[in-house]
Amino acid sequence: MNSNLHVVILGGGFAGLQAAKSLRRADVDITLIDRRNFHLFQPLLYQVATGELSPANISAPLRALLRKQQNARVLLGEVQDIDLERQVVRLTDRELAYDFLVVALGSVHHYFGHDDWEKIAPGLKTIENATEIRRQLLGAFEAAERSLDPEEIRDLLTFAIVGAGPTGCELAGTIAEIARHTLKNDFRNINPADARIVLIEPSEYPLDVYSQPLPSKAAKALQRLGVELVTCTRVTDIHQTHVELLTVGNEQPWRINTRTVLWAAGVKASPIASSLLRQTGMASARGGRIPVQSDTSLKSHPNVFVVGDLASFNHDEKGDLPGLAPVATQMGAHAAKCIVADLNDKSRTGFRYRDRGSMAVIGRYSAVGVIGGWKFHGFVAWFLWLAVHLMYITMFRNRILVLVQWGWTFLTHDRSARLILDGPTTSIPQLAEATGWDNDSAMPHVESTAQETES
Amino acid sequence: MNSNLHVVILGGGFAGLQAAKSLRRADVDITLIDRRNFHLFQPLLYQVATGELSPANISAPLRALLRKQQNARVLLGEVQDIDLERQVVRLTDRELAYDFLVVALGSVHHYFGHDDWEKIAPGLKTIENATEIRRQLLGAFEAAERSLDPEEIRDLLTFAIVGAGPTGCELAGTIAEIARHTLKNDFRNINPADARIVLIEPSEYPLDVYSQPLPSKAAKALQRLGVELVTCTRVTDIHQTHVELLTVGNEQPWRINTRTVLWAAGVKASPIASSLLRQTGMASARGGRIPVQSDTSLKSHPNVFVVGDLASFNHDEKGDLPGLAPVATQMGAHAAKCIVADLNDKSRTGFRYRDRGSMAVIGRYSAVGVIGGWKFHGFVAWFLWLAVHLMYITMFRNRILVLVQWGWTFLTHDRSARLILDGPTTSIPQLAEATGWDNDSAMPHVESTAQETES
Repeated sequence: MNSNLHVVILGGGFAGLQAAKSLRRADVDITLIDRRNFHLFQPLLYQVATGELSPANISAPLRALLRKQQNARVLLGEVQDIDLERQVVRLTDRELAYDFLVVALGSVHHYFGHDDWEKIAPGLKTIENATEIRRQLLGAFEAAERSLDPEEIRDLLTFAIVGAGPTGCELAGTIAEIARHTLKNDFRNINPADARIVLIEPSEYPLDVYSQPLPSKAAKALQRLGVELVTCTRVTDIHQTHVELLTVGNEQPWRINTRTVLWAAGVKASPIASSLLRQTGMASARGGRIPVQSDTSLKSHPNVFVVGDLASFNHDEKGDLPGLAPVATQMGAHAAKCIVADLNDKSRTGFRYRDRGSMAVIGRYSAVGVIGGWKFHGFVAWFLWLAVHLMYITMFRNRILVLVQWGWTFLTHDRSARLILDGPTTSIPQLAEATGWDNDSAMPHVESTAQETES
Repeated sequence: MNSNLHVVILGGGFAGLQAAKSLRRADVDITLIDRRNFHLFQPLLYQVATGELSPANISAPLRALLRKQQNARVLLGEVQDIDLERQVVRLTDRELAYDFLVVALGSVHHYFGHDDWEKIAPGLKTIENATEIRRQLLGAFEAAERSLDPEEIRDLLTFAIVGAGPTGCELAGTIAEIARHTLKNDFRNINPADARIVLIEPSEYPLDVYSQPLPSKAAKALQRLGVELVTCTRVTDIHQTHVELLTVGNEQPWRINTRTVLWAAGVKASPIASSLLRQTGMASARGGRIPVQSDTSLKSHPNVFVVGDLASFNHDEKGDLPGLAPVATQMGAHAAKCIVADLNDKSRTGFRYRDRGSMAVIGRYSAVGVIGGWKFHGFVAWFLWLAVHLMYITMFRNRILVLVQWGWTFLTHDRSARLILDGPTTSIPQLAEATGWDNDSAMPHVESTAQETES
């Protein structure tokens, strides 16, 4: 049995995990390599960032998912490089030879040449991103409650979200709901409902991947939630205290004062892409993605497949496939199918994406989307969104827990996963800095028994 | 209304939170100060450390808990010092004057003069402790799976827990269950059931706060779970690779090779205690605690109450009260009662702890405890333990979620909160270091297609 061919899969996201699962009956030995010990259900990551779900609710241990699949093993490891000629994957501490390779390492945030923005404006890709965003959001309300300066309070309660794609809309809508409902009576000095949520988008409408009327429906839904929609506007710079903007048709730059900027504007291929492009001599596609053959393999190396966000698949004249979970899942399955075809000396088929639809949620009760060619919006779309996401989340236990938490939040507006965590950054010096208090320079402020608290 | 007296409460644990709640009808302005924005249900912290519950399941936002209590406000802040003479609390960035002060800052780990052990052997007090322990436990299995050296694998799969009090027994029992059941089929190179779980205790029995036969029942329950009980033995030193031990009646020191040491051996008063002791000229009680009057106030400063783990209450000839949640809760309520008495010009009463019982769980199906003077052990005690903890956990939503997760784990042995998180420490160089692999010095290990995987 030890003469089986070795399939190495890089990445345990939707594409990589599906590739491994689709090979369950194949006579191969599979090694799935991921930096993390869990598969992440990314479509619900924004609900962790906004305190509705816990990280474990949208994660499933990779080992548990592949427990019964005896031809697969999981290896925790960070991929340093791939050597296409020697057919080895280089990890931090060892090399691993492969017969077939499935590269499913996904995408990272794209700050369009302004990598320094990343520190100020976190994106939403990992569990750590989500808890960091949660920390910043809740920390801003806490700092505002402590502040005595009205101007500072206003800036602290201004939240700017860059990019009105699905993630941007989900974040903006949910933050609006938190401010207006969840935190309603939590503070004594500030009114969380005063929060300003600004969604900045270079094109004319939010969610412009959809055709009308969905984008204009989305715009209306966002405005109903109290989100300020700033369209036709580009971010030209991001600072700790403000963002600089430029609106089409107006050459005067302007700014929004804010202490919290979230990045939902774009992704690019994982860094491994440049090495693969260099070795194959190919030009990169949009966002640094790797152009793949119609069977999802590399032209020069048919035993290497690139699937998911990392791949640029452009074979049906509809343009690149979008970076969605269903695309990744189907590509992963297809790569597996090609490997099985090779093992059986059959010919490979071309990949075709079966578009069953996609959706984006905009706060409570509202969503837009297309399913099976039908356009949906409003409450019906929102309900479909819930059902579909509940159906697809990995592991049955997570399904129960997510259902209970959604039901509870729906009924009460309460979000109990509102933990400000993550070690030293949560200490008060950090908050003090954010609010302009300074231990050394400020006059000690001794409050008398005459409290500002109302009773 | 602004002439109300100002009650400042330091700490949002069981004692502080209860003090605030018990003052809900009093004509006072309350400021509750905590470093964190949530109240933590510490008795279930070990279930976060062992991947059964998520941090948010045992936490409740302090603001949400006090939302409806209009005379209370919550302030996130780190207490630097208390000035008893000037009646102010000094935070990092401001001072706060008080008329009444309730100090409920709890305890920290006690390494008995070996503070350097803390880095190697984490204790279990905070959410961060719990996720760190979870990371170490799961990381050890991952590193063992990657290792090729049988001796190293054996050390990685040895888990030493220092101290067989309630926390030590809970941890040891649960780790045994994880190794034997939860991870059963998750690995390909190691057998998690080979794990050695060693519980080290200086006295003759585990849980020796209880009277017999409970300690010997506990010992049997632990052994049934496969925990090695090393009694009458002190830890004399802790290293990255081993612990050094000395057993009573044997002058020869010995060692256990292990990469994972967990500390459950003792706590001492929060650092603020030494400042209070110095200002009052009192001698510290056991573990640096602060001796309090029979009404839980300071002798020299009757408007200052010390409650919970920080207080040494020794007025009924039974010795110090234990550091348990019910003790803290009742003390907090009593301090509030004394403040109300003062406001109404009535005389204060002395505090009496109403001991309704206590329990410790030892793995699945088994616990020992005393309730209302009755001793329980085995399955009945375990079931009572579940019921009591479910009843007392804060917030109704947490109750539902914890119930669902306990039910699921009970039925399937599955623990889905098995995330190795926490940023940079999770990267593989860390694991590589732990296993002795080294990127620079080790020969690249190129695996051939002849896999060690069975198929």
